[in-house]
Amino acid sequence: MSTAKRMDLLGSETAFAVSAEAASLASKGTKIYPFHLGDINLPTPKSVINAARAAIEDGKTGYCPAPGIPELREALANDVGSARGLDYRINNVSIQPGGKPSIGKYIAAMMEKGDIVLYPNPGYPIYESQIEFYRGIACPYGYVNTPEGLRLDFDTIENGIERGAKHIFYNNYNNPTGASSPDEEIERLAKLVIDNDMFLISDDAYFDTLYDGTPKSIASLPGMYERTLTMYTFSKKFAMTGWRLGGAIGPEKIIEQITRLNVNMESCTTHFIQHAGVAGLKAPKAETQEILDELQTRRDILVDILNSIDGIEVHKPEAGFYVFPKITDLMAQIGFNDPEEFRKTVLEETGVSFCGRHHFGRPLDNEPDFYIRLAFSGINKEDLQEGMDKLKAWIDVRRK
Amino acid sequence: MSTAKRMDLLGSETAFAVSAEAASLASKGTKIYPFHLGDINLPTPKSVINAARAAIEDGKTGYCPAPGIPELREALANDVGSARGLDYRINNVSIQPGGKPSIGKYIAAMMEKGDIVLYPNPGYPIYESQIEFYRGIACPYGYVNTPEGLRLDFDTIENGIERGAKHIFYNNYNNPTGASSPDEEIERLAKLVIDNDMFLISDDAYFDTLYDGTPKSIASLPGMYERTLTMYTFSKKFAMTGWRLGGAIGPEKIIEQITRLNVNMESCTTHFIQHAGVAGLKAPKAETQEILDELQTRRDILVDILNSIDGIEVHKPEAGFYVFPKITDLMAQIGFNDPEEFRKTVLEETGVSFCGRHHFGRPLDNEPDFYIRLAFSGINKEDLQEGMDKLKAWIDVRRK
Repeated sequence: MSTAKRMDLLGSETAFAVSAEAASLASKGTKIYPFHLGDINLPTPKSVINAARAAIEDGKTGYCPAPGIPELREALANDVGSARGLDYRINNVSIQPGGKPSIGKYIAAMMEKGDIVLYPNPGYPIYESQIEFYRGIACPYGYVNTPEGLRLDFDTIENGIERGAKHIFYNNYNNPTGASSPDEEIERLAKLVIDNDMFLISDDAYFDTLYDGTPKSIASLPGMYERTLTMYTFSKKFAMTGWRLGGAIGPEKIIEQITRLNVNMESCTTHFIQHAGVAGLKAPKAETQEILDELQTRRDILVDILNSIDGIEVHKPEAGFYVFPKITDLMAQIGFNDPEEFRKTVLEETGVSFCGRHHFGRPLDNEPDFYIRLAFSGINKEDLQEGMDKLKAWIDVRRK
Repeated sequence: MSTAKRMDLLGSETAFAVSAEAASLASKGTKIYPFHLGDINLPTPKSVINAARAAIEDGKTGYCPAPGIPELREALANDVGSARGLDYRINNVSIQPGGKPSIGKYIAAMMEKGDIVLYPNPGYPIYESQIEFYRGIACPYGYVNTPEGLRLDFDTIENGIERGAKHIFYNNYNNPTGASSPDEEIERLAKLVIDNDMFLISDDAYFDTLYDGTPKSIASLPGMYERTLTMYTFSKKFAMTGWRLGGAIGPEKIIEQITRLNVNMESCTTHFIQHAGVAGLKAPKAETQEILDELQTRRDILVDILNSIDGIEVHKPEAGFYVFPKITDLMAQIGFNDPEEFRKTVLEETGVSFCGRHHFGRPLDNEPDFYIRLAFSGINKEDLQEGMDKLKAWIDVRRK
C-alpha cells in the first residue's frame, strides 16, 4: 500500500523536529537551552486546574455537543467580543481542541480547490501546509525590516490580490517574527480585504499576551466583522498548551461548517476541559498577569543580551514569546552562509536550541537577510542567561 | 463567501441530531428515556481520574510529542498486542483525541481519490462521510439476518471486491447492529482481503466490551498483521467518552503518515489525559469489570422486554452497548411505513428516544426490513424499565 498522493502536499511544523534533535542530544548528556518551541514552562493557573478537577468529579466525562458546551461558547463569545468591541453570541463560536484545528477546518470548509490564499511567510507553517493539502494556491506575503520593527510587505500582499487572492491569513503579534501592526497598517489591510471582497482569518494566538497597552483586532474595524474568522487559543495566555483548548469565532455560517467538521473529526473537545476554560475566562486577572510578567522579564533580558552581540539585531516584540534576530552580519563575520548549518552547529557545540526562519514557511526568493527565532516561554531566567553566555562565548571563539 | 464544494460531500453523525431533538423536548418538560446515544452514564474508573489529577499537579500541561507520550504508546502497543497475540511496538502507535479521528486520518493518508472503499452499512456513519469527503467511492456492504444473529453479507463484499475495492472498514462487535463475527466469518473475510491485496481498518471500539469469552481480532489471522490498522478507543471500556482518547495501531509506515496529520490538525492529544490512559491500561480489571457487569445486566433486561413485544425481534449482542431490533412487523401492525415517522412519533408521545437504521449510513436499495437502534449505555436500569413500559403501553393503545 502506498501513501495517498495528497500526502505529498502536506507540510509540517518542523519546529517539532528541532525538539526531537534537542531531546536526542539531551539524552546523551548535553545540557539543552530550549529556545526552540513555543511551549510554556509555567504552571496553568490554579482556578483552571481546580475547575478541571471539579468537572471530572461532577461527571463531566461523557460526550458534549460538537460545537462545545453552551457555557464555554457563551463565555468565549463574551470575552472575545468585549475585548474587540464586537457582539458575538453562542452561535458565533465553535470550540476546538486547540488553536491549530481552526486553520485546516477553515480551509476545508471555505476554500475551493485552486483558490489563492495569502499567508504570512515567515509565519506559522501550518497555514502553508493546510492551504496546499486542500489544493489551494499558497501565496506568501513577507515583512520588511524598518527601524520601528518588521512591517507587512504590502507589495507582496497587493501582488497576491492582483493574482486574485480570496482569503488571507493574518497573525498580528506574529509568530515567529514578533511583529505587530500599528493602527495604520491594520487599517490599510482591512481596506484591501473589503475593497477586494476577501475573507480574513485572524490568528489571535498572542492577542492576549500584549505586554503594554490594549491589543487591537482587525475584526473590530468597520466592515470587517463579517469578513473575519478569529482563531482563539487558551494555550498561551493561560499556559495551557498541552490541554488542547481553543475556538473559532466568526460568522455563523462559517462556524456551522466548522462544527460539521468537528463531528467528523473528533466528535467534541474534551468535556471537562471546557469547564476549566470557562473558569479561566472568569479567573482574576492576577492569575494570568503573573504569567505575562514573568514572560516580559525574560523578553527584556533576552533582547538586551542579543542586541549586545555584534552582528545581531533584534526588535523588542510587543506581544508573544518570540524574538526574531537578524543574524546576517554575524553569519558573515564567523563564516556561515547556511542558516540550518549555523543552527545545528550552535546546538551541537553549545546546547543552545532555536529555530531558523526556514522553519516558518518555505523561504521566499531573494530574501536579503538571515533570521532565527528564539522562544523565551519555555526557559527560565537563569538558563536563559546561561545559554546566552554560552552562545556569546562560542561566537567569541569563532571570531578568533 | 460560499461554502467550499467539498463540504457537499461531507456527511454527519445524525445521532447527534436525535440528541438535540431529545434535549429540546426535555427542556419543555418531557421526561426523556435516552436510548439514542452511545454515551455512558457511569463514572470513569478512579485510577484513571486519580492519574489525570496527579499528572496535572505534576505539570504535564505542556505540549507532548505529536504521536503521543512514549509511556502511553508503549502501554497501548503492549495491551493491544497481547490481547491479539501480536507484536506491536511504540512506532506502531499514534495516539488520537478519541477513536474517531483515525477514520478520516487513515482515509486522508492512504486512500487515493477514486479508490473504492468497502464499509459496513448499517455502520458507523463517519466511514461513509469521510470516504466521500476525500473523494473515494463509498461501497457499502450489508448484513443478513440469520437465526444466530446478523451476519456479514458476503455477496455485497464480493461485489465490491469485483468492482476493485482496495480498502475495507470492518467493525466486529458492530455499531449499530451488535453483530459479531464467528471464527469462520473472520477467516473468510481475511482470505478475501489477502487474496485481493486489500487493506483493512478494524474498528475495535467494542473489542474490550465482549461480555463472555475472549474477543478476536482479524489482525491476529495469518497474513493480516501487515494489512490491518486497528482503531482503539478508551471511550467505551473505561467510560471515557468525553475525555477524547484513542489511538491508531498498525504498520509503522501508515502510523507515520497519521502522525503527520496529527501535527497538522491538533498538534497532540491532551498531555495529562495520556497519563490517565496509561493508568487505565494498568488498572485492576475489577474497575472496568464493574462497568461491563452493569451494562450486561441492562442488556439482558432490555433484550427480554423487546422480545416480549409482538412484532419486534432482536438478537442479544455479545459485545457493545446496542440492540438492533427488527420492527418490520410491528410497524405494519400499528400502521407505520416510514421509520423516521415512527421514531419521531414514539419520541414525542412517550419520551423514548432511539435512533433508526437510517442514522447509520444511507439505507441500501431493497432492504427488506426496518430496524431501530437502542443504546443501553446511557440509561439506568430503572429508567430503562420505565421507558420500555411506556413504549409497550403506547403500542397497546396503537393496536386498538
